[in-house]
Amino acid sequence: MRPSGRAPHELRPIHFTRHYTQYAEGSVLVEFGNTRVICNASVEDRIPRFLKGTGRGWITAEYGMLPRSTHNRMGREAAQGRQGGRTLEIQRLIGRALRAVVDLAALGEVTVTLDCDVIQADGGTRTAAITGSYVALVDAIHNRLKKRAIAHSPIHGQIASVSVGIYEGTPVLDLDYREDSTAETDMNVVMNEAGAFIEIQGTAEGHAFRMNELQAMLELAKNGITTLLAQQTEVLARN
Amino acid sequence: MRPSGRAPHELRPIHFTRHYTQYAEGSVLVEFGNTRVICNASVEDRIPRFLKGTGRGWITAEYGMLPRSTHNRMGREAAQGRQGGRTLEIQRLIGRALRAVVDLAALGEVTVTLDCDVIQADGGTRTAAITGSYVALVDAIHNRLKKRAIAHSPIHGQIASVSVGIYEGTPVLDLDYREDSTAETDMNVVMNEAGAFIEIQGTAEGHAFRMNELQAMLELAKNGITTLLAQQTEVLARN
Amino acid sequence: MRPSGRAPHELRPIHFTRHYTQYAEGSVLVEFGNTRVICNASVEDRIPRFLKGTGRGWITAEYGMLPRSTHNRMGREAAQGRQGGRTLEIQRLIGRALRAVVDLAALGEVTVTLDCDVIQADGGTRTAAITGSYVALVDAIHNRLKKRAIAHSPIHGQIASVSVGIYEGTPVLDLDYREDSTAETDMNVVMNEAGAFIEIQGTAEGHAFRMNELQAMLELAKNGITTLLAQQTEVLARN
Amino acid sequence: MRPSGRAPHELRPIHFTRHYTQYAEGSVLVEFGNTRVICNASVEDRIPRFLKGTGRGWITAEYGMLPRSTHNRMGREAAQGRQGGRTLEIQRLIGRALRAVVDLAALGEVTVTLDCDVIQADGGTRTAAITGSYVALVDAIHNRLKKRAIAHSPIHGQIASVSVGIYEGTPVLDLDYREDSTAETDMNVVMNEAGAFIEIQGTAEGHAFRMNELQAMLELAKNGITTLLAQQTEVLARN
Amino acid sequence: MRPSGRAPHELRPIHFTRHYTQYAEGSVLVEFGNTRVICNASVEDRIPRFLKGTGRGWITAEYGMLPRSTHNRMGREAAQGRQGGRTLEIQRLIGRALRAVVDLAALGEVTVTLDCDVIQADGGTRTAAITGSYVALVDAIHNRLKKRAIAHSPIHGQIASVSVGIYEGTPVLDLDYREDSTAETDMNVVMNEAGAFIEIQGTAEGHAFRMNELQAMLELAKNGITTLLAQQTEVLARN
Amino acid sequence: MRPSGRAPHELRPIHFTRHYTQYAEGSVLVEFGNTRVICNASVEDRIPRFLKGTGRGWITAEYGMLPRSTHNRMGREAAQGRQGGRTLEIQRLIGRALRAVVDLAALGEVTVTLDCDVIQADGGTRTAAITGSYVALVDAIHNRLKKRAIAHSPIHGQIASVSVGIYEGTPVLDLDYREDSTAETDMNVVMNEAGAFIEIQGTAEGHAFRMNELQAMLELAKNGITTLLAQQTEVLARN
Repeated sequence: MRPSGRAPHELRPIHFTRHYTQYAEGSVLVEFGNTRVICNASVEDRIPRFLKGTGRGWITAEYGMLPRSTHNRMGREAAQGRQGGRTLEIQRLIGRALRAVVDLAALGEVTVTLDCDVIQADGGTRTAAITGSYVALVDAIHNRLKKRAIAHSPIHGQIASVSVGIYEGTPVLDLDYREDSTAETDMNVVMNEAGAFIEIQGTAEGHAFRMNELQAMLELAKNGITTLLAQQTEVLARN
Repeated sequence: MRPSGRAPHELRPIHFTRHYTQYAEGSVLVEFGNTRVICNASVEDRIPRFLKGTGRGWITAEYGMLPRSTHNRMGREAAQGRQGGRTLEIQRLIGRALRAVVDLAALGEVTVTLDCDVIQADGGTRTAAITGSYVALVDAIHNRLKKRAIAHSPIHGQIASVSVGIYEGTPVLDLDYREDSTAETDMNVVMNEAGAFIEIQGTAEGHAFRMNELQAMLELAKNGITTLLAQQTEVLARN
Repeated sequence: MRPSGRAPHELRPIHFTRHYTQYAEGSVLVEFGNTRVICNASVEDRIPRFLKGTGRGWITAEYGMLPRSTHNRMGREAAQGRQGGRTLEIQRLIGRALRAVVDLAALGEVTVTLDCDVIQADGGTRTAAITGSYVALVDAIHNRLKKRAIAHSPIHGQIASVSVGIYEGTPVLDLDYREDSTAETDMNVVMNEAGAFIEIQGTAEGHAFRMNELQAMLELAKNGITTLLAQQTEVLARN
Repeated sequence: MRPSGRAPHELRPIHFTRHYTQYAEGSVLVEFGNTRVICNASVEDRIPRFLKGTGRGWITAEYGMLPRSTHNRMGREAAQGRQGGRTLEIQRLIGRALRAVVDLAALGEVTVTLDCDVIQADGGTRTAAITGSYVALVDAIHNRLKKRAIAHSPIHGQIASVSVGIYEGTPVLDLDYREDSTAETDMNVVMNEAGAFIEIQGTAEGHAFRMNELQAMLELAKNGITTLLAQQTEVLARN
Repeated sequence: MRPSGRAPHELRPIHFTRHYTQYAEGSVLVEFGNTRVICNASVEDRIPRFLKGTGRGWITAEYGMLPRSTHNRMGREAAQGRQGGRTLEIQRLIGRALRAVVDLAALGEVTVTLDCDVIQADGGTRTAAITGSYVALVDAIHNRLKKRAIAHSPIHGQIASVSVGIYEGTPVLDLDYREDSTAETDMNVVMNEAGAFIEIQGTAEGHAFRMNELQAMLELAKNGITTLLAQQTEVLARN
Repeated sequence: MRPSGRAPHELRPIHFTRHYTQYAEGSVLVEFGNTRVICNASVEDRIPRFLKGTGRGWITAEYGMLPRSTHNRMGREAAQGRQGGRTLEIQRLIGRALRAVVDLAALGEVTVTLDCDVIQADGGTRTAAITGSYVALVDAIHNRLKKRAIAHSPIHGQIASVSVGIYEGTPVLDLDYREDSTAETDMNVVMNEAGAFIEIQGTAEGHAFRMNELQAMLELAKNGITTLLAQQTEVLARN
C-alpha cells in the first residue's frame, strides 16, 4: 500500500495554471499533488556566445527551491554564493529536454529561459518542472507568433516527464516525498508524444534493479506520460 | 490623477493568505495589488554565534525576487553567486523591523527566519514583505505556544509598513511600479500600533523635499498603516 | 550629559584636509572628531553599461573600513571575498546623495568614483563620508574645468550630512561611538543648501520614536548641516 | 563503420595501472583507449557533519580535467572559482555508484574520497573514472585491512561502467570522442557483478530513442561491463 | 642620474609616525618618500587551527592598497570578491619576515595581525610595509608587556627591508615608481640587525643579472637596511 | 648525510617525457626524482586585454596540484572556489621566468599558457615546473614554426631552475620533501644559459643566512642548472 493510498500506476492530481504571473511570456503554475512549481518562460533578444553568427537561438533553464519549500529550511543558494550540484544537474536536465523538441534555427536569435521555482516540494519537482515548462514554452512561442516575430512555431514535438521507482518491492508511478525518501530505486523519465525516450535517469538507492524491474518501471512511466501529455494538450486548448 | 485611478490616500487592495505553504511554521502570501510576496517564517533550534551563551534568540530575514517577477527578466542571484546591494539592504530592513517588536530573551534560543520571496513585483515589495512577515511571525509564534515550547508570546507590539512618495507634485500612498519609477520622492515607513516610527527611509529621487512635504507624506503613511494593522488583526482573528 | 561633554546640539570638531593624497583628482581627509575618512574622487573615461549612448556620466561611491579602524579588528572584506550588507548600503547611500546635486548630462561621459576609506571610526562614518565626498567631488570637477574638459560645472547644489539620535531620552546631534552604540534612535540626514531633504534614514533601536521626537531630531540635523555646509564653503574658498 | 574501425560491440583496449602514485591509499591509472584518468582513493579520519554520531563512514568523489586534456584548452576550474555543472554531475555519479557496493556502517568512521583526474579525454571519462575508482577503492580497503583498522571488507559487490550509444543508426559500445560528439543517443550504464543496474543515464541527443533501441544498448552495455568486471578482477588478483 | 636626483646609494626621506590610529595595539604610519603605508598591529586571543594545542601563537599579515593610492584607480579587491596574486604574495612575505624574529612559543596563544594599508604608492610599498610593521609589532608587544600578559618580549631580532635594482645600468637603492617601472632588475631584501638575510626576492625584468651585479645590489641593500634599522631604533626610543 | 644518500651537490635523477599527452602543442612530463609534473603548453589565438593593439603575444602559466599528490590529501582548489596564495605565487613565477627568454613581439598575437599540474610532489615542484615548461614551450614553438605560423623562433634564451638550501648546516642542491620540510634556508633559483640570474627567491626558515652561505648556495645552483640545461638540450635534440 502506498502512503497516499494511490494504486501503483496512479498519478497524483495534476493541475496547470496558465498565465500565473503577468510579466513572463509564458507563465505556468504546475502542481503534481502537493508539489508546486512556477515555470516562467522569458524570451530575450540575446544568444549565448557560442551561438554568435549561427542564426540559431537557445533554450535554457534555471531551477531553484524556496528555502522553506521543504520540511526543514534549506539554505538559500543566493546567500551561500553558489548553486549546489543537485540544482545544476536539474536545470541542465530541464534545458536539454526542452531543446529536444525545438528547432533552434527556426526559433531565431533569441534565448528562452525557463525559470522553474519550487514553491512547495513533495517529490517529483524536476518532472513537474519539465512538464510545466513545456506548457510555458508553448505559451511563450504563441506570444511570439502573435507578435509576428516568427512565422511558424519552432516546436516540433511534445514532452512530459514523470518519476517511477520501486517502493517496498513494487514498481510505482509518480512518487511523493514519503515514497521517494525510502524508495529502493528512483527513475526520472522524459518521453515525447511518439512514446520515445528523451531522457532516462535511473538510480539504485537500495538495491540494484534488474532488467524486468526496469521494464516494469518504463511501462508505468509510459502510461503516466501519456496521461500528462493529454492534460497538457487539454490545458493548452483552452483560450 | 494616479495611473491606477486611485485617490492619493488610497491603498491598493490588500490581501493576506495564511497557511500558504504547508511546511513553514508561519506562511503568508501577501498581496498589495499586483505585488505578491510569499513570507515564510521558519523556526530553527540554532542561534547566531554572537548570541551563544546569552539565552536570547534571533529574528532575521532573507529576501529574493523570482527572476521574472519583473517586467524584464533579472539575473538569478544564486546563479550570479552573490546577493546584490538592494537585496541585502531590504533583508536587513525586514529583520530589523520585526526585531523591534519581539523580546529576544523571551523568544528562547531559536532563530526565526522570515523568507520573503517576491512572485510578482508592482512596487512596494519591501513594505508588503514587512507587513506580511508580521503575520507569518505571529503564526510561527502561535505554533510554538501551542507546542508549549514557550509559555508566553515574546511579541510585544504590532508593525506594518507602507510606501509614500511625491508623484507629479502630489503626496501619494502605496505607490505602484508606474508611480514608483517616476516619483520625485520615495519613502518607506514602518510604524507600530501606537503610531510611533520604527523606521523611516526617504530618498529624494527628483528634487529635494521640504519639511511640509515630509509631514504630508508621514500623515499619509500613518493612515495607511492604521488600515494595514487593522487588516492584519482581522486576518489573524480568523481560525 | 553626553559622554563627550558636548551640548546636545553641538557638533564635534570638524576638519577637512584637501589634496590629502597626490594622485586622485579630488582627495579629502575629513574628520568628525576622532572619525577620520579619506574621500578620494577619481574621474575615469568610462561609463556604466546602462548609460551607453545616452551622453550622460555617472557618480558612484565605494566604502571600506580599515580592519583596525574599530575597537576590535574586523575581518578584511577583500579577504572574506565579499562586501557586507552594511558596506553596500552605505556606498549606495553616498552615491545617491551626490548624484542628487549633479547634472549627469552636463558631467559628460565620465564616471566619478568616490572612494571613502575609514581610517578611524568613532561614529558617523557615513555622514562624514558624504560631507567629505562633496568637497572631493568639487575639487575633481574643478580639475576638469581647469583642463577645459568641460565648460561649466555640472554641480547644481551643495550637500552635507550628519547623524542625530535620541540618547538617554534627549535628542542629540552628531553621535560618537559611545552614544551611537546605546542610542534609542539613530538617524542619518542628508540636506542641501536650501534646507531641503535629500535622504532621511531613521531607525528605532530601543523604542519607537514619536512625531515630536522626529521633529526635534530633524531640527538638530538642520542646524548641524547648516554649519557643515558653511565649513565646506570655507575650506573650498581657500586656494 | 566506426571511426576507430572497432566492431559495434567492441571495447577499446582497457588498462589499469595500480599503485600509480605513491601516497594515496589506492591509486590507479585507468585507460579506456586514449582516455586516461588517475583515480586516487584517500582515506581520512573524518566524516561529514550529517553522519556525526551514526558510526557510519562515507564514500565520495571529486572529478577534474586537466585544462589541456581536451582538443582545445578548457579554463581551469580553480582559476574560474567554481566547478561547472558537468563536473558536479559527474562527481556525484561516481560517489553514488561506489556507495552502492559499500556497507558504510562496516566502513567505520572514515571518509574515502576518490579523486578522478582526467589526464587525457577521448570520450567515456566518467565511465573510466567509475571503473578505475572501484579498483582504487579495493586497494584502499585492503590497505585498511592490512593495518587491521577494520576486520572485514565493507565492500559487498563489484561495479564497472561503460557508455553505449547510437552512432549513425547503429547501437555501439564504449564511444570515443569522435563518436560521442555526433552520436544520436548517449547512455552511461553502471552495473554490478550480478548483472543488475546501479545507474542508467540516457540522453537523446539527435532523436528520441525507442524501447527496442534502449534494449539493444543495454545488451551491449551488459556485455561490455562483464568484460570490464573480469579485467578488474584479474588486475586485482596480481600482487 | 636618478629621476629624483638622488645618489645611487641614497634612501628617500624615511619617516615613522607611531600611535597613528587609536585602537590598534601598535599603529605606525611609515613613509618612504611619497610612499605611505599604515601598519596596524592587532593582538587577538585566537590562534589558527593548525596551532591548536601547541601553546604557540602566530604572526600574520594582510596587505591592501586604497583604490586611488596609484596613478590610475585600481579596482577595489573587496568589490571584486578576491585578493589578487600580488596582494597574497606580499602579505605572505610580510608575515614570514616578521615571524623570523619572533619566538612563537614565548608569544603565547595569541595571533598578531599586521594590517598594511597603502595610502599612497610611489614604489617600495612592500619594503615600507615590512619596515613599518616591525615598529608596530614592537609597540604591540610592549603593550602586552605593560599589561603583564607576558613577562618577556618574544622578539629576538630586528628586521628592516628595502628594494634595490638596476636602473639604466646602475645599481640603485630604494627605487621610486619612476625607477621601478623601468628598472632592468628589481630586488627586495629583508635583513636583520646582524646583517644576515631573512629574504631575497630578485627578478630580472629587462635582462638577466650577473653575480657581480647581484653583489653590488646586496651591498646597497645592506647599507640601506643598516640606516633603516637605526631609524627604527631611534623612533622606538622615544616615549 | 642527506636522507636520500645523495652528495650535497647531487641532483636527483631527472627525466623528461616529451609528447606526454596528445592534444597540447607542447606536452612534457618532467621528473625530479619522485616529483612528477605535467607541463602542457597551449597556444591560443587570443591575447590579454592590456596587449590589444600592440601586436605582441603573451606567455602565462597556471599551476595546480592533484589533491593526493601529497602525503595528506589537500583540498581541491576548484572545490574550494579559489586558488591559494602559494599557487598564485608559483604560477606568477613560472610565467615571469619564461617571458624572460621570449620576444613577445616576435611571438605574434597569441597566448601560450603553460599548465603545470603536479601528479606527485616530493619537493621542488616549482623548479621542476619551470624546467619542464621550457621544454614544452620549445615544442609548442616548433609546432608553430612547422605550421609556418611564424618564420623565426621568438625564444632567445634557455632557462632552467633548481632549489638549493641549507640542510643541517650544509648547503645542498635540489632538496626533496624530507630536506625541504626541515631546511633552515630554502632558495629557488632560475638561471639562463649564460649563467645569469632570472630569478632568486630565498627565505630563511630557521635562521638568517649570511653572505658566504648565500654564495655557496648560488654556486650549487649554478652547477645544477648547468646540468639541467644540458639535459633539456639533449632531450630536445631527439626527434
